[in-house]
Amino acid sequence: MKESGRILVRVAKAEDSALLLELIRELARYEKLEHECIATVEQVRESLFGNKPRAEALLAFEDDAPAGYAIYFYSYSTWLAKPGLYLEDLFVKPELRGKGIGKRIFLELLRVADANGCGRFEWSVLDWNQPAIDFYQRMGAKAQGEWIRYRLEEEQISRLARKGEIG
Amino acid sequence: MKESGRILVRVAKAEDSALLLELIRELARYEKLEHECIATVEQVRESLFGNKPRAEALLAFEDDAPAGYAIYFYSYSTWLAKPGLYLEDLFVKPELRGKGIGKRIFLELLRVADANGCGRFEWSVLDWNQPAIDFYQRMGAKAQGEWIRYRLEEEQISRLARKGEIG
Repeated sequence: MKESGRILVRVAKAEDSALLLELIRELARYEKLEHECIATVEQVRESLFGNKPRAEALLAFEDDAPAGYAIYFYSYSTWLAKPGLYLEDLFVKPELRGKGIGKRIFLELLRVADANGCGRFEWSVLDWNQPAIDFYQRMGAKAQGEWIRYRLEEEQISRLARKGEIG
Repeated sequence: MKESGRILVRVAKAEDSALLLELIRELARYEKLEHECIATVEQVRESLFGNKPRAEALLAFEDDAPAGYAIYFYSYSTWLAKPGLYLEDLFVKPELRGKGIGKRIFLELLRVADANGCGRFEWSVLDWNQPAIDFYQRMGAKAQGEWIRYRLEEEQISRLARKGEIG
């Protein structure tokens, strides 16, 4: 592990919206999908810190410099009748990796899940991201390989909902 | 399509907790995983209709007889800075299939997603459930095949969180 400065992980606040979006865009670039990241600062502020927060965020700093972030929301397990924590994004700046910052964020998320009585903690990984997959396997996480996720995009939702007919 | 009686789809209420759990257990049997369904009526009531509802539910009836249900929660798309709707369960009793009840439930969920400005509508399907997969493909939904979902169970969450160390 590389030497690291003082690492701090804290809950993100409305004033962090611009910083959060900057980090979100950096992750999108890393995933080679920056064109799909169309959120604005205003939308980040409203959706995370407005009247109806849709997710929660953590920020990580090394010696007060932004180092990474996580965004998560609560899922639900029907069979347990308990919430789950779903980790949507976890990102550490490439030049700051290998210092244990990702693990510090992950550990903080586990504490949040534990404190909220979550029956599961889940996330998804791109199948080419081998370093991440190796880390998750070492941790004892189980791949849900028998499940295929399907998605309808916003335009399809509106069209089908208004048409009043599917299939 | 088989002939059907009067179909009604409505939002589930606290009084529906026992009925919901009955239907949840029936789906677990269909997925050959009934032993994993350990929720009690009290837990269903508390987690869905208590102080901090963790998900929402719809119930379907044919001529006033319970026919199926759906349970969903709001996810979050970082790149859109918008909520998504995640459909955790959708179930129609086997003997009532082919009458359009599943489509009626699905359509109602699309309306909920549309009304809430959701940027995506997602769900997962077991890879052996070909009738369902065919239906989703016809609808124009896209399989998110490049993503692998990972999971930590409750016992692992507590252990790692308390140990204060991962990986």
